[in-house]
Amino acid sequence: MKATMKAIVKTKPGPGAEICEVDEPEITRPDQIKVRVQATSICGTDYHIYSWDRWSANRVVPPRIMGHEFAGEVVEVGAQVESLCVGDYVSGESHWVCGHCQQCLMNDRHVCANTRILGVDVNGCFAPYVVVPAASAWKNDRSVPPEIACIQDPLGNAVHATLSGEVIGRTVAVLGCGPIGIFAGAVAKAAGASAVYATDTRNYRLELATKLGADQVINVLEADAEAAILSLTGGKGVDVVLEMSGAPSAIRQAMRICRRGGRVSLMGIPAQPVELDMAEDMIFKGLTIHCIVGRRLYETWDTMRSLLASGRLDVSPAITHILPFEEFSHGMDLMRDGACGKVVFKMP
Amino acid sequence: MKATMKAIVKTKPGPGAEICEVDEPEITRPDQIKVRVQATSICGTDYHIYSWDRWSANRVVPPRIMGHEFAGEVVEVGAQVESLCVGDYVSGESHWVCGHCQQCLMNDRHVCANTRILGVDVNGCFAPYVVVPAASAWKNDRSVPPEIACIQDPLGNAVHATLSGEVIGRTVAVLGCGPIGIFAGAVAKAAGASAVYATDTRNYRLELATKLGADQVINVLEADAEAAILSLTGGKGVDVVLEMSGAPSAIRQAMRICRRGGRVSLMGIPAQPVELDMAEDMIFKGLTIHCIVGRRLYETWDTMRSLLASGRLDVSPAITHILPFEEFSHGMDLMRDGACGKVVFKMP
Amino acid sequence: MKATMKAIVKTKPGPGAEICEVDEPEITRPDQIKVRVQATSICGTDYHIYSWDRWSANRVVPPRIMGHEFAGEVVEVGAQVESLCVGDYVSGESHWVCGHCQQCLMNDRHVCANTRILGVDVNGCFAPYVVVPAASAWKNDRSVPPEIACIQDPLGNAVHATLSGEVIGRTVAVLGCGPIGIFAGAVAKAAGASAVYATDTRNYRLELATKLGADQVINVLEADAEAAILSLTGGKGVDVVLEMSGAPSAIRQAMRICRRGGRVSLMGIPAQPVELDMAEDMIFKGLTIHCIVGRRLYETWDTMRSLLASGRLDVSPAITHILPFEEFSHGMDLMRDGACGKVVFKMP
Amino acid sequence: MKATMKAIVKTKPGPGAEICEVDEPEITRPDQIKVRVQATSICGTDYHIYSWDRWSANRVVPPRIMGHEFAGEVVEVGAQVESLCVGDYVSGESHWVCGHCQQCLMNDRHVCANTRILGVDVNGCFAPYVVVPAASAWKNDRSVPPEIACIQDPLGNAVHATLSGEVIGRTVAVLGCGPIGIFAGAVAKAAGASAVYATDTRNYRLELATKLGADQVINVLEADAEAAILSLTGGKGVDVVLEMSGAPSAIRQAMRICRRGGRVSLMGIPAQPVELDMAEDMIFKGLTIHCIVGRRLYETWDTMRSLLASGRLDVSPAITHILPFEEFSHGMDLMRDGACGKVVFKMP
Repeated sequence: MKATMKAIVKTKPGPGAEICEVDEPEITRPDQIKVRVQATSICGTDYHIYSWDRWSANRVVPPRIMGHEFAGEVVEVGAQVESLCVGDYVSGESHWVCGHCQQCLMNDRHVCANTRILGVDVNGCFAPYVVVPAASAWKNDRSVPPEIACIQDPLGNAVHATLSGEVIGRTVAVLGCGPIGIFAGAVAKAAGASAVYATDTRNYRLELATKLGADQVINVLEADAEAAILSLTGGKGVDVVLEMSGAPSAIRQAMRICRRGGRVSLMGIPAQPVELDMAEDMIFKGLTIHCIVGRRLYETWDTMRSLLASGRLDVSPAITHILPFEEFSHGMDLMRDGACGKVVFKMP
Repeated sequence: MKATMKAIVKTKPGPGAEICEVDEPEITRPDQIKVRVQATSICGTDYHIYSWDRWSANRVVPPRIMGHEFAGEVVEVGAQVESLCVGDYVSGESHWVCGHCQQCLMNDRHVCANTRILGVDVNGCFAPYVVVPAASAWKNDRSVPPEIACIQDPLGNAVHATLSGEVIGRTVAVLGCGPIGIFAGAVAKAAGASAVYATDTRNYRLELATKLGADQVINVLEADAEAAILSLTGGKGVDVVLEMSGAPSAIRQAMRICRRGGRVSLMGIPAQPVELDMAEDMIFKGLTIHCIVGRRLYETWDTMRSLLASGRLDVSPAITHILPFEEFSHGMDLMRDGACGKVVFKMP
Repeated sequence: MKATMKAIVKTKPGPGAEICEVDEPEITRPDQIKVRVQATSICGTDYHIYSWDRWSANRVVPPRIMGHEFAGEVVEVGAQVESLCVGDYVSGESHWVCGHCQQCLMNDRHVCANTRILGVDVNGCFAPYVVVPAASAWKNDRSVPPEIACIQDPLGNAVHATLSGEVIGRTVAVLGCGPIGIFAGAVAKAAGASAVYATDTRNYRLELATKLGADQVINVLEADAEAAILSLTGGKGVDVVLEMSGAPSAIRQAMRICRRGGRVSLMGIPAQPVELDMAEDMIFKGLTIHCIVGRRLYETWDTMRSLLASGRLDVSPAITHILPFEEFSHGMDLMRDGACGKVVFKMP
Repeated sequence: MKATMKAIVKTKPGPGAEICEVDEPEITRPDQIKVRVQATSICGTDYHIYSWDRWSANRVVPPRIMGHEFAGEVVEVGAQVESLCVGDYVSGESHWVCGHCQQCLMNDRHVCANTRILGVDVNGCFAPYVVVPAASAWKNDRSVPPEIACIQDPLGNAVHATLSGEVIGRTVAVLGCGPIGIFAGAVAKAAGASAVYATDTRNYRLELATKLGADQVINVLEADAEAAILSLTGGKGVDVVLEMSGAPSAIRQAMRICRRGGRVSLMGIPAQPVELDMAEDMIFKGLTIHCIVGRRLYETWDTMRSLLASGRLDVSPAITHILPFEEFSHGMDLMRDGACGKVVFKMP
């Protein structure tokens, strides 16, 4: 008789999800591993699938076990796996890449043409066990606890975006203080940024940004962020802008508050086309724009491990809620209300 | 009595320009040089000033001697000039930079915050003599004739845009085959591009692009350029896009025909805001966007001298007209009709 | 009954090798492929093993089928192989990397801490069939014939060394015109070098270098190469030096002929320690030194495919001998005498 | 009658120096400024000139006012100076560059072919007043006091060496804890290094290194530094080595303790040729070697200003002695005995 487990499952199209009893996943290829999940966390993408936005309706085929951020212990390895052993402590890169498209061959696997995403295109990790390719697993340093190790997928987004150009001694603006924006501010400080200015519409999140090192925060509903940032930089604009909100107005602002010759990293996903004054705000200023998706496999992870294990980067204040797995829908309510930083589920 | 000379002068607001008798310019600072102009060429900017578009009306204060592209012989040097002697053969960087803003101090002088432009903000080189700061002059290799040496300002735009990222072994699309686009194709080939695909609306210009090395040209009025380029690249898109047209539709196309992880250099100036599907066409693809203005002082010039003097880059077929200075208005008519590549005036 | 084949085998310690009848190799892991070898070529390393130098004696454990450069057709794939099919036309990266050391995880697989080398640490490709990990195979463009496709491993060394820094518009000196040095000159020209100066002790090889594009060649036994190169560069030295000889005198010369701020890529392997005047020749000049080993997996291969398939790089004149497999010892004699460029064996 | 001042002068060949009454320097070119020196500090080079080593005997022509590190107030500006005003607070780049050699034109001015050095080739700043080209002066942030602002020339060496490659999340070894080595450790930490390991022969200096952030220090006379560093890095070696001692044994060690694919920045100047096992220790490991001289004009200074003004970098514990100008020979004794970090003279 097959072993079963309780998992959070998107059972059908439409809003919501359910905790269901499902078969425990099994290794079906010799290059896979099976992991006992110790902690898992909620991404904005999970909330989109939960609330069933247009993107989810086009992409996700229920039933689907949700979740792609996790840390846990390897409990079984396929016959061909040489890089990992039973007992290893791992997290997962949620982007499963093909390894043989041009991007993969050129080591730009974060833009693999054939990416499949855990918890989106295949069954995910909101469950006691998950089976993943060994090549998607990252061996953690034991000093990093599961509730931190599980958030490395989004933290990796922040590391990738922030460190896609020079940071040391530079002024940095972070537009949008969801968890990735908050992380980005912390990464910028760890990398020697001379100042981090963060904006958002919610004071709750701006307070978290401050806890993680932002030097100055601006609520865009209460102040003119563009004027404020120009003033803080003597009228020149910041050296680096990290756009994490996806709001068209913030994307336009990103270009305007960036100094001549500066760098803008765009990570927030706008829901509709964006109109830009490209001549004045971008081309005449000679900006460099980095469009950021995912994390570099595995340069970003290597840097992240080093920063976490050495204590140079402490993101623990951003983890505002650690819930038991059963309180899944409470976690989703927190996401909806923006009344949280990162929400983590500890597994029994 | 002061020496006088005939120069092409924007005498008053509104369309047109006149050949006038004006005072010969004189050195007024010890860091300047005086140059006898041997050849000068027409830039799109000159045509904008001639036809008096909105940008010109806002920026140019008549009377103004026009022109910023030149090559000639140094006939006098200021007391503090050590880098040049009378008799030296020079061209001019049209962007006069301040040397002390943050960008200049960081060697990003092409985005100097206090740039003044020859023939726009100060009197230009459509004249037998011009006085410029020694720091804006570039000593030419004697093997490069004046009619080539004078076009290095726009050729430098092309070199800067093309070489702002890796080119060797890469597929390159050039959108817009005005002189800078045509040059860019030639530079890409000299740099080892595996293929150059060029688009424009005029067959005349596409033929010039072919003469300068484009492997495939596409008239966007006659064919679906996007489909064609995707087909030429096995559906993947090109590695590098050089956007030289400024047309909003071409800018959108630039993002769509660039492969995941590829590079888009934007140099064409759109006359109005541009709407982009940033999520699908840019962010999810992890593009790198370089906004290009001017030329790097003087890395770009150094590379250009080397390519021209060694014969690795031959742009002479792009110089379609060499006119006597007096036929100035004929040159402007050619510009208006797009019935030309580069138009050069040889000075007597 | 097992199939057998004739292979070139290092049967025992000491000089020499034999053509032996051996078992045809079989796939033993699901991630391997079996290749029918169509062409294979001799590397300096093969000659070292043949003549049994100190390095070979310490590293190679006979009996060992020799050879690591090949091109051929996939005739069988393991159960887990997804990137290749029977009938695919492939070459092999001779460095088999582990995939999980820090270097591999950071995409610097050419410096993998656990590299095994085909034909050195495992049985090689001087045989009609070879079994290799699918991950070490590179799918060739069909337009590149086997006698060219088989030399991509050493050509990749040249591409890696040459393109480890900027080349376009730069002057390049190549010290040592064995096959990799000759290739390097050709790659530099394809990448837009303004001039390539090559040195060696044999005119035969210098003539080959000229055929592949070197602008100027210098026999160091007949002329003062250092004086010559300084003179060719107006006393400044070259922008880029590619040291391919491993001779201590050439390594010292590399530092002296490189201009202030220039780049030296060191690929030749000196047999003993080298004494350098580091203060004057290196540090005060602010040189950048790249120590080059192997090829980048697979950025270098991707560039190489593109250069070969597009015709931008033609290295065929460097292939001076195409021999039947049986004339193996004649090939080794040519290597010993330096009376060859690249020696290729065509398989029946 | 000419104004005079007391200055520290190398009056004749041979050991020693004297405080002499000399003419106050005057502006002789319109691009110069005159500075009232507020603080100046002793460099190892000053000590070499004082003790009259071979290098000094070949280079310095007495009488020469010594000193090249300073901070002070502009008291007069030449007629052509636009970037500075009387009253500005400046430090000096000691390398006066020509501005027109190839290196200067390519913005590699730290390797200018015609560099003159303040206090070596021209009269220096161990005096109440110094006249320098405006182009060699750097406008300080007012928040940085003179005793810190004056040491930016050597601190710039450390910034240049440390930040010549990636540091964030990397392990860094600093070999040699003179002031520049000590600074380098602090810069590495400010830039996010995960660990800094420092070596020297004197515990005094290792204690200073610890005060400036080194995580682990090793006295090479008391322990096997190579074994220690390999052990601290799990046998792999460090990511980055900053060689600041110039000792041949340390340079060899730098190559051995650097991990495969790592970076070694060489700044210490060996007094004689150095023998290296280039094959095993450098080439097979694929190292990148940066030979470091001076500081980048002015990228390094811009980063340094930002780090100092923001408080991200605090080097004050390295300033172990602040002496009155008259105690010059006491300062030189401290230098001789290595019983100091940085020795600063406050001017009256």
